[in-house]
Amino acid sequence: MLEKNMSIKGTQKAKKSVALSGIIAGNTALCTVGLSGNDLAYRGFDILDIAERCQFEEIAYLLIYGHLPNSSELKAYLSKLAKMRGLPNIVKRSLELLPAHSHPMDVLRTGVSVLACTLPEKTSQNINEARDIADRLLASMGSMLCYWYHFSYNGKRIECEIDAPDIASHFLHLLHGKAAPATWVSGMNISLNLYAEHEFNASTFTSRVIASTGSDIYSAICGGIGALRGPKHGGANEAAFAVIGRYASPDEAAGDIIMRLEKKEVIIGFGHPVYTISDPRSNIIKRLSLKLSEENQDQAHFNIAAKIEEIMWDNKKMFPNLDWFSAVSYHKMGIPTDMFTPLFAIARTAGWSAHIIEQRLDGKIIRPTANYIGIDPQVFIDIEKR
Amino acid sequence: MLEKNMSIKGTQKAKKSVALSGIIAGNTALCTVGLSGNDLAYRGFDILDIAERCQFEEIAYLLIYGHLPNSSELKAYLSKLAKMRGLPNIVKRSLELLPAHSHPMDVLRTGVSVLACTLPEKTSQNINEARDIADRLLASMGSMLCYWYHFSYNGKRIECEIDAPDIASHFLHLLHGKAAPATWVSGMNISLNLYAEHEFNASTFTSRVIASTGSDIYSAICGGIGALRGPKHGGANEAAFAVIGRYASPDEAAGDIIMRLEKKEVIIGFGHPVYTISDPRSNIIKRLSLKLSEENQDQAHFNIAAKIEEIMWDNKKMFPNLDWFSAVSYHKMGIPTDMFTPLFAIARTAGWSAHIIEQRLDGKIIRPTANYIGIDPQVFIDIEKR
Repeated sequence: MLEKNMSIKGTQKAKKSVALSGIIAGNTALCTVGLSGNDLAYRGFDILDIAERCQFEEIAYLLIYGHLPNSSELKAYLSKLAKMRGLPNIVKRSLELLPAHSHPMDVLRTGVSVLACTLPEKTSQNINEARDIADRLLASMGSMLCYWYHFSYNGKRIECEIDAPDIASHFLHLLHGKAAPATWVSGMNISLNLYAEHEFNASTFTSRVIASTGSDIYSAICGGIGALRGPKHGGANEAAFAVIGRYASPDEAAGDIIMRLEKKEVIIGFGHPVYTISDPRSNIIKRLSLKLSEENQDQAHFNIAAKIEEIMWDNKKMFPNLDWFSAVSYHKMGIPTDMFTPLFAIARTAGWSAHIIEQRLDGKIIRPTANYIGIDPQVFIDIEKR
Repeated sequence: MLEKNMSIKGTQKAKKSVALSGIIAGNTALCTVGLSGNDLAYRGFDILDIAERCQFEEIAYLLIYGHLPNSSELKAYLSKLAKMRGLPNIVKRSLELLPAHSHPMDVLRTGVSVLACTLPEKTSQNINEARDIADRLLASMGSMLCYWYHFSYNGKRIECEIDAPDIASHFLHLLHGKAAPATWVSGMNISLNLYAEHEFNASTFTSRVIASTGSDIYSAICGGIGALRGPKHGGANEAAFAVIGRYASPDEAAGDIIMRLEKKEVIIGFGHPVYTISDPRSNIIKRLSLKLSEENQDQAHFNIAAKIEEIMWDNKKMFPNLDWFSAVSYHKMGIPTDMFTPLFAIARTAGWSAHIIEQRLDGKIIRPTANYIGIDPQVFIDIEKR
């Protein structure tokens, strides 16, 4: 017999392409996803209310510390994070060793793993220490990525502890070597807010499974980065740009996508394992990508993306997920395509960390079982007679 | 309504301390655990038949390639693995940076992560490439651990590509700086065989969740290492030795353990999330730990461990799991306590890799859902008014 916490969630229909679809794997106070088919809330706050009105640090604070900060809490938090941007020498020397051909997600996972050796978590029972490490990661993952990027491509050792008001402006400044336009910074905040948290998605679930064994927060975040890297998950924003970027015009895109759909090809950036009606984040990021495109006086990618959105809806009744117009937005901010998923990882570190702490407090180990489809019991034969 | 693959497994009873206990999260042909309460089989072969009669490489081959090798297949496999023991320069330089106080599991996770940057997996679709990487990891994880160990403690850069017939002898030789006695090598083979695979345990499940997003095998193994590190999982063999090592005699142990049980303290190394009657691996490792102790003419730790086993059974009807007498066995082979879990990781890399490949072929993303226990929808208030 099923216990209450093992039943399939009432309103959700199990999806065949998803294992454990609709199966409850634990409790959370952090997030609701798709209760009505196209809604998302972080600790009770509707994403439509907070995405464009909060700085990313307010959202990270909400997730990790439990409430939206007031002005003085936010000021103190921004100041704490700014002091954590620097990288220990061991981390810098390690990043310098990694080849320019490395995937930035592998670089990020390595940087976090080395940081764990350098400043290990002393006990996996202390919530305050875990929050401090979460903050340090939020503050310094951008440093890791940009330090490695400039060193591996140009041999340049950049200064990471620059004067920048927040994580969004810090990242853009380090990447481009100069302060970014205000619209990019505000756009980056919106994007990080949208990517910050999403209940028991595969990478967050990975982090929770790791945390459930009593392991440290760094191990759990490294696991999350590894899971997010996959093209069926965070890697989709990179893959989405590869789709959009391959066409010269909306018409060319339309013709080719229809042909691919006829061949049953999966188009990355559409559909979702949980949402059934639409992704509530999509309109927000679409508006942002249009704004950045207009400002840039170049709507080519936006128009192609919008045309494919139309084709996918008309032909397959499939809606774009967050990754689709994120790809256009990031491209407009001059971000190299293989840095798209690492940005997602920085944002999701807020959600991962909050879930890791929640899983620890829960105290259960996550250990499902398997359906055996293998061969029957075998008689052992010594190697000489095989 | 539950679909067939979502139901609780017929013969197993859900355990309250385990999330997703008894819930089927996917298919496997690799392993059955606890079908009758105390049985374990790898691809149909009973652990009681194979643990003491196979070399670890036969078991790794069985798991990764699908059948027990014949003599010529094993010879070719041993030769392939021996050629993969060396570490790329980038990996060596990275390991040299990691402090002596690092946890070896953090070192191992970092080494694997750096190897991923150095020799990345080209496509997550190619099974042969994944098998090659699995083999390289099996062959070189011992090199990573011992290279770092000797460098960080003694500043010595050891040669990893030594002449040793197998993974067990290679590890012991690198660690101790000389060839190990035959009984140690055969004991290490038994121990690695016992630790090689265990269905959907937390670390393997972590690897599968990561693989399910289409991510690379290195990311999935890094996740597995991180999950195994926790004291409720692989970290238990280290914790078990801390228990055994704190007593001077069986009598002292008995008195203290009884007192701790009265205070409801959990004694690490006993009980299991799946087995209900006993851990079938325990008698094998107990025999081994006695043999190594007798040979060493020092049964002190063995006697203490055996006394605590008796107390736990008499008072709590709890049986020792594999970790309990593994701790004694490893100690008798002169292995530092914080290398116990890394050895488990080397062994389990065989199981993890086989599961990662299986999950890829399955093609589903693993994405459960959560039970929301948070606050009701909130009205957003601008920061100035909070």
